[in-house]
Amino acid sequence: MPEILCTPIGFVSSPFKERGDAPRQGKLTDEISLITLKEEYLPATLGLDEEKDIFVLCWFDRSERDILQTHPAGDDTKPLKGVFANRSPHRPNPIALTLAEVIRIEENRITVRGLEALDGTPVLDIKPFRAEFDTPNR
Amino acid sequence: MPEILCTPIGFVSSPFKERGDAPRQGKLTDEISLITLKEEYLPATLGLDEEKDIFVLCWFDRSERDILQTHPAGDDTKPLKGVFANRSPHRPNPIALTLAEVIRIEENRITVRGLEALDGTPVLDIKPFRAEFDTPNR
Repeated sequence: MPEILCTPIGFVSSPFKERGDAPRQGKLTDEISLITLKEEYLPATLGLDEEKDIFVLCWFDRSERDILQTHPAGDDTKPLKGVFANRSPHRPNPIALTLAEVIRIEENRITVRGLEALDGTPVLDIKPFRAEFDTPNR
Repeated sequence: MPEILCTPIGFVSSPFKERGDAPRQGKLTDEISLITLKEEYLPATLGLDEEKDIFVLCWFDRSERDILQTHPAGDDTKPLKGVFANRSPHRPNPIALTLAEVIRIEENRITVRGLEALDGTPVLDIKPFRAEFDTPNR
């Protein structure tokens, strides 16, 4: 098995500077964040201006990777759940999945609403939301 | 910037053996796949049996990482789009996001419907679907 080595496609600039500053999920904030892509990935944004809702996959570099169970929503009164059964930022591969709203795109700078990432967080991928694939059939 | 090194939490066993075998998206198949987690991650599945729909994040190790624009759905008659504006398996970090249906969980083996991953694909993360976070407000 070769190593799985990710490369940041860009970085987040956000008002959340430290772990305690960020909301639990992006949907719980109206704050604006900026994703600055590396210039070399500009061709990969062709058509992105037609999208309103995008999944942003970030690498939560300030998360813990060896925590396997947490209390949902950080609420100690709730029973422990495995991190694959909740949305904890702490997980073996701290890849955060956040549906954000595109506000503006200017070249390699994508302004979004609803990202909970800390300032400086590496971005791994951007995908357009597709209701037909991303919501249950039922 | 330290290296971003992911570790597979497990692997997919699926009927899709080669690139041409797999459907374009998991929702386009009723085929059953098996995710076998590494034993060490068993504690991270606590409560997963309560979930019906899970996002499976796979590392598409047979994708191309230097393709930045593709024709949507592999249809040459459609204009090129950047890979951040479509759901191509080819992207700088080939992390696939698929909403799959949990059929059965037996210890570290998770049987799901609707995964398009090739046989042997590494799995990076599993997250429960949460409509309040994973669908647009509008």
